[in-house]
Amino acid sequence: MTGWIAVAGLSPGNEALVTPEVRAALDDATDVVGYIPYVARIAPREGLTLHASDNRVELDRANLALSMAAGGRRVVIVSSGDPGVFAMASALFEAFEALGAPAIDIRVLPGITAMLAAAARAGAPLGHDFCAINLSDNLKPWALVERRIRLAAEADFAMAFYNPRSASRPHQFARTLEVLLQVCGPERLITFARAVTTPDEHIKTVTMAEALPEMADMRTVVLVGNSATRRTGRWVYTPRRAD
Amino acid sequence: MTGWIAVAGLSPGNEALVTPEVRAALDDATDVVGYIPYVARIAPREGLTLHASDNRVELDRANLALSMAAGGRRVVIVSSGDPGVFAMASALFEAFEALGAPAIDIRVLPGITAMLAAAARAGAPLGHDFCAINLSDNLKPWALVERRIRLAAEADFAMAFYNPRSASRPHQFARTLEVLLQVCGPERLITFARAVTTPDEHIKTVTMAEALPEMADMRTVVLVGNSATRRTGRWVYTPRRAD
Repeated sequence: MTGWIAVAGLSPGNEALVTPEVRAALDDATDVVGYIPYVARIAPREGLTLHASDNRVELDRANLALSMAAGGRRVVIVSSGDPGVFAMASALFEAFEALGAPAIDIRVLPGITAMLAAAARAGAPLGHDFCAINLSDNLKPWALVERRIRLAAEADFAMAFYNPRSASRPHQFARTLEVLLQVCGPERLITFARAVTTPDEHIKTVTMAEALPEMADMRTVVLVGNSATRRTGRWVYTPRRAD
Repeated sequence: MTGWIAVAGLSPGNEALVTPEVRAALDDATDVVGYIPYVARIAPREGLTLHASDNRVELDRANLALSMAAGGRRVVIVSSGDPGVFAMASALFEAFEALGAPAIDIRVLPGITAMLAAAARAGAPLGHDFCAINLSDNLKPWALVERRIRLAAEADFAMAFYNPRSASRPHQFARTLEVLLQVCGPERLITFARAVTTPDEHIKTVTMAEALPEMADMRTVVLVGNSATRRTGRWVYTPRRAD
């Protein structure tokens, strides 16, 4: 039996957003590896072993997958959203490189990343040039995050922020909002999209002057419009044209 | 009969990347509206009228959809990739706003946008903070595009470029490469992903020193790594960590 790894995106939560390509890989797998809440989304079946692990052990998880695939298992590594956006694909290639790039069949199967699901629910806030920034500073210095926010505002990008706030670092998102208020001004629109496409979904758009740190948690993706982003009816959108 | 509009993303080309949510909307529709090559992807069936239109008539298309939905039709506006990324969602809301935000049931159904499909095929080049820039200057001045590229490089974002090159504006992508060579240096990795996930797919990664304008056309999405992006085996990835 020839083993393989598929690094698959499960979308943010609604099963109707999981692509047929990902579904086929799951149907053909012998093992599923991932963070506990993502593995919990996979229906158990005979012949499928579920390997759920805690947060922040991405390299262990990647090494487990590589070792099982080398032994002939068919392994799906599951991420929420898209595996290439602040998720398991980079961690897998880090582990793969550390092992000397072994001859293992790897595929990356894209998914609907949270910012695009959130943008769809809000309207089209990312309808012009935009950037995506992971606000967690587990793997980079906070000064770099702040510098990127300032340059992104200067470029007038719409912005999507992943992992805005956690119990262990509550002050950073407050600081993010301070910087955004300063560089984008009080009228800029900001959308808090929590648990997007799940039964717990909550989407709220306010001005930067009204934004509060408590409006975000780790299940929230935050979208900031560019200088032209506007409301129409219950929607928020960024026009295609810019001057 | 109550009309509605679904603005749906068909993914870049592989039908196995079309979400079940989009498939269900297409199954329930009376009309499909879109650019000719995207409408050509929809199987004809009884009770479904296909309205294919040429490029650059996005507002006409949006107005047609709004008018049909107001008359009780169930209309899917199809985009390649994701409708919220350089596609029909913003155009629809522009037309909707111009009509005074009428009471029409609108949903935006996300899809796999080209940069994420391309990144998956290449490895994980967008695995750290990144930006997406539309290189077409139909709707914005070229100076703004160039300014955004410079600021994005200064922020050390990985970058995705949509619509890099067309017959009517061949010189701009050459200029983009000149700017990138200057601000990112000759060793920076750049991936040309043409017709990604289709039978015509061609993916090629080179250094910025080796990049040529002719490597891109309008079916290409171009991915530029950040300063840490590297190769391992046949893959390209951006590490999660940054200093």
